[in-house]
Amino acid sequence: MPEPAPLGEFERIRRFYRPLASRTPGALDLTDDAALLSPAPGHVLVVTADALIEDVHFRAADPPDLVARKMLRVNLSDIAAMGARALGYVMTTALPRRCGEDWLERFAAGLAADQEEFSVGLFGGDSVATPGPIALSLTAFGEVPLGQAIRRNGARPGDGVYVTGTVGDGALGLLALDGRLPPGIGAADLAFLGDRYLLPRPRVAVGPVLRGVASAMLDVSDGLVADLGHIAETSGVGAEIERDRVPVSPAGRAALDRDPGLWSAVLGGGDDYELLFTAPGPVPETVAGVPVRQIGRVVAGAGVRVLDEQGRSLSVAGAGYRHF
Amino acid sequence: MPEPAPLGEFERIRRFYRPLASRTPGALDLTDDAALLSPAPGHVLVVTADALIEDVHFRAADPPDLVARKMLRVNLSDIAAMGARALGYVMTTALPRRCGEDWLERFAAGLAADQEEFSVGLFGGDSVATPGPIALSLTAFGEVPLGQAIRRNGARPGDGVYVTGTVGDGALGLLALDGRLPPGIGAADLAFLGDRYLLPRPRVAVGPVLRGVASAMLDVSDGLVADLGHIAETSGVGAEIERDRVPVSPAGRAALDRDPGLWSAVLGGGDDYELLFTAPGPVPETVAGVPVRQIGRVVAGAGVRVLDEQGRSLSVAGAGYRHF
Repeated sequence: MPEPAPLGEFERIRRFYRPLASRTPGALDLTDDAALLSPAPGHVLVVTADALIEDVHFRAADPPDLVARKMLRVNLSDIAAMGARALGYVMTTALPRRCGEDWLERFAAGLAADQEEFSVGLFGGDSVATPGPIALSLTAFGEVPLGQAIRRNGARPGDGVYVTGTVGDGALGLLALDGRLPPGIGAADLAFLGDRYLLPRPRVAVGPVLRGVASAMLDVSDGLVADLGHIAETSGVGAEIERDRVPVSPAGRAALDRDPGLWSAVLGGGDDYELLFTAPGPVPETVAGVPVRQIGRVVAGAGVRVLDEQGRSLSVAGAGYRHF
Repeated sequence: MPEPAPLGEFERIRRFYRPLASRTPGALDLTDDAALLSPAPGHVLVVTADALIEDVHFRAADPPDLVARKMLRVNLSDIAAMGARALGYVMTTALPRRCGEDWLERFAAGLAADQEEFSVGLFGGDSVATPGPIALSLTAFGEVPLGQAIRRNGARPGDGVYVTGTVGDGALGLLALDGRLPPGIGAADLAFLGDRYLLPRPRVAVGPVLRGVASAMLDVSDGLVADLGHIAETSGVGAEIERDRVPVSPAGRAALDRDPGLWSAVLGGGDDYELLFTAPGPVPETVAGVPVRQIGRVVAGAGVRVLDEQGRSLSVAGAGYRHF
């Protein structure tokens, strides 16, 4: 049987993308040259972008709906890290011929599910063909009251260092999916970790609550130590964290019990999408239902030190993920 | 000699991209999770995005500075087509290893030149590696007074159909660069056409002036007939154009004189980035220094007809470029 004719660009847009623009009137049903977008009065727009490449940022075998949701979620995490509320996104997709209607349907279903979960919508984009690997790019928009965006440069000596949720599940999850964790970890723990890698939980409800609380904030994508280094460098300060205060999930603990060398992955592996922030005053133990843990403090100087229980510096191999 | 170590992501950003963010304070020097962006009071943001893939949208041999400028310009053209003024852009780049410092330097130089020419700046983005072809994605921002964006859906029977500049140079330019034009066309004409393909001239000064004048507008990217079809379909009308009124450059005329079959490329080839609009009232022959020509009219019904000098319908092969 001959291969079915591939869908034209306009048909792809009509069938798969236009339904995603139903909650964003400014998308103009994707029929115009551009979309219209306004922050609420007294607010400023927050804009962030990420590119995801097959075989670099996701694996060719990953389900298309999870790829779509991860792409959206990593950007929503950046919006939350500014203390902002997400509004929507524009997206460009470059797809090889083998991504047919079934692939597109699952990809769009993933976006639809997360649009519902996070109250965001599609504003526009572009849909092209590529002879290479899948190449996705997403630009997300949020809004934050004028002058209240939480930046990276506000950490001051004496501030506490805090992190939401648990750290290391994403990096351990990738190892789990690749079969590279030591034997003896239970199937439920492996499944939990793999899921955390494939489907991050951006802390969208936490970010806005931390306006006026956090002095500096970002989301953990390069790795806890590397990202705390970004805050330190941008703020012109140093920071110390106590390794044993870093919150680890029960599944992460199971992995560390079998191989304490995995602390490098936990502290340096990235893909956590937890919020890492500094704050001068007291911070509740739970913010918007999410546990928050103090793991260290901001100090004068430069760089990040990781301390063991005796207060001695530990070296962290692979302090963060680098492209190239 | 060993290959020099590739630049890290942060070093790339610092050296090549941060200087491009100097005129956009909201970019926060590219040191934060997201950029801040506000339309002027009483204005709404206009947002558009395009993906460009090597060997699909540009040729591997094209100079990196021209690739960068074309990517920016096709988006500025979309902003102008909404009657908006451009503010800046975010960009994601996925580059193979072979794109080293020299490539990046020339790519960034192209962006810097056009930022100067069009008074726009970089707001942010992402820079990743790819095992495949170069994959670029650019999201551009503009602003337009509230309620004054020029959309595609306002054409009414009786309106005139107008186009800026000359049509067909982009499509003929691609044929010229590929050595596929008939012999006998002068070198200067070939160079003119090739340059028009590589470096479009978005009508950024014209678009905003047409607010309150044009009833519907877009930029010609898919091809004159296909794009007029977009206006007709979105507006629920039909349209007629007289082929002999379509403005053609002297170089384009030289090509058509040698092969009238090239009218298909002129009317259907796309990549013109001229503004195509409808207007109920009289339109000056020159807008913001750019010639504007009436080429037809909006009629009741549906579809686009191209008429010869006797008013007979012509068939236009390849009415527009389709991806996939």
